[in-house]
Amino acid sequence: MKEVAERAGVAISSVSRVISGHPDVSEAMRARVMKAIEELEFRPDARAQSLRTGSTHTIGFIAADISNPLFAEIATGAEIELRAWNYSMLVANAFNDAELVREQLLLMEHRSVDGLLLSVSDETDPELQAVLQRMPFPITLIDRDVRGFTGSAVLSDHAAGLEEAVACLVSLGHRRIALVNGSEKVRPSRERAATLRRALEHADGVVPELRMGEFSAEYGYAATRELMAKSARPTAVIAGSNQILMGVLQALRDLALTVPDDVSLVSCDDLPVLSFLDPPVSTIARDPLAMGTQAAQLVLEEIDGAAPKSVVLATEFRRTASCGAPAAP
Amino acid sequence: MKEVAERAGVAISSVSRVISGHPDVSEAMRARVMKAIEELEFRPDARAQSLRTGSTHTIGFIAADISNPLFAEIATGAEIELRAWNYSMLVANAFNDAELVREQLLLMEHRSVDGLLLSVSDETDPELQAVLQRMPFPITLIDRDVRGFTGSAVLSDHAAGLEEAVACLVSLGHRRIALVNGSEKVRPSRERAATLRRALEHADGVVPELRMGEFSAEYGYAATRELMAKSARPTAVIAGSNQILMGVLQALRDLALTVPDDVSLVSCDDLPVLSFLDPPVSTIARDPLAMGTQAAQLVLEEIDGAAPKSVVLATEFRRTASCGAPAAP
Repeated sequence: MKEVAERAGVAISSVSRVISGHPDVSEAMRARVMKAIEELEFRPDARAQSLRTGSTHTIGFIAADISNPLFAEIATGAEIELRAWNYSMLVANAFNDAELVREQLLLMEHRSVDGLLLSVSDETDPELQAVLQRMPFPITLIDRDVRGFTGSAVLSDHAAGLEEAVACLVSLGHRRIALVNGSEKVRPSRERAATLRRALEHADGVVPELRMGEFSAEYGYAATRELMAKSARPTAVIAGSNQILMGVLQALRDLALTVPDDVSLVSCDDLPVLSFLDPPVSTIARDPLAMGTQAAQLVLEEIDGAAPKSVVLATEFRRTASCGAPAAP
Repeated sequence: MKEVAERAGVAISSVSRVISGHPDVSEAMRARVMKAIEELEFRPDARAQSLRTGSTHTIGFIAADISNPLFAEIATGAEIELRAWNYSMLVANAFNDAELVREQLLLMEHRSVDGLLLSVSDETDPELQAVLQRMPFPITLIDRDVRGFTGSAVLSDHAAGLEEAVACLVSLGHRRIALVNGSEKVRPSRERAATLRRALEHADGVVPELRMGEFSAEYGYAATRELMAKSARPTAVIAGSNQILMGVLQALRDLALTVPDDVSLVSCDDLPVLSFLDPPVSTIARDPLAMGTQAAQLVLEEIDGAAPKSVVLATEFRRTASCGAPAAP
């Protein structure tokens, strides 16, 4: 991988992108890398094997919750990249349980994985840091920020998409905007909460209604019922995850509130089926497949000797008819 | 596990259900098993460990496609059960690729798993049978039927729910009923195809429009466009999976066909969000969590020395407003 990159005069990550068929590769780059590959008679499989003789050629992936559809896409992206380098991926589920994360880490160590992709459900677990430091292989965090952790990370720029969404809602005339948010123990929820507060700090007379909870339909339902029972209820709701959205939708239905006439609705993270709801739900979208691919690249580069680094990927607001002007008070 | 079952005078699977907190356990059964556990000073964790000293306490799960939301639920059910017995689960994805399934099987062997849950994308792969027979651990198939395989399996009774759906559509007056089906290389699609043919064999003047393809939105889209371009187009469509459904929905939208006025719609397998579509989509539902739990029980029982067996779980038709009478011709 390094030899090809050196010969082609490009970054290792570019070689990786060409090999894995990443769409964001120029034709010129592809030609350059393929020429170097031919000149070196490089075969990704054999190369990876000889480079890493004695390794297990296995990358672990500890997921906070494999029932989250977002995980499936991240894992698929990671595995496509890993397979291009002849690595297998082994997934373990942590059921959103901090102790179980630590257990799964020890299991991965026991199985001699060459590297690990990690998404924890509680970054604040005081014992996590020590366990992470003990691990003898590179670890790439997926949208997580653990104090003292010095490895790689793939992060989402949650602020960008959420700022766009809030600006849109404010410009439509909303003066009470709710965020039914996930757990404050993980980066995405904290980033979203901080963004909402910051975005509305100087928006005269616009009140943020922030609810921190968990990534579940049950929580989304309870928080929405509570918010809508207030005398001054929010006219716009942002659901902090696709699981939370299911609860928000159920609560709005039970309360006979319609979107967008009674409540404008935005959700974080996209699901294919959201575009078929009536109205389709506006989303703060990111590219989970790219997150997985990028995470796999980072861990493979570290295995090949590169220094750890963090990569931030974009989010964007996709407005649909689920956002409209609030009804006159 | 056996000792507890013997002492309580119940089946091993009943002990397993009590331990894992399965909802379908009577209070009497629970009391009986708990009494035996107390009398034997049985601790699931320690017990499992001593029973299986030298084992890796790991069960593999090779999934045909981890991006299928059904997989996430089956895997979650399996892992809850496995954890109750102090087993870890390692997941590998086969990307719907027959060769990759065989590679992943060898990888699981290399990793000395104690047992395996397996869902392949091509039961007809001629090399699969030989590889399965070579594996030194018990294997439980998940809704698959591989010729010559003599291990355990958890199967869905696809016919029951689909028969109900077809009977409902026929009684509403539909005379041309389409099934946009997945691959004939796996049991669920073959069972559904056979059921449709059988159900309409004696239904005078009702024509089945069967399309066999793959479990993808792209295929669902293409098949629906083709069906709806016919001069005598179907008035009811059954989507053979949740991925296929996405394509069917997109095709109906592009053709400006409404549900149920122009086309009645049924989907196989439930997703929480389907109930929020307008109209909600009728489903032929099964319990994927129970499938996973049952599969884990079967593989653990085999590890404990029980003979392999097949368990068939129910499906049921859940009718919504997506099924209506066809428009007058």
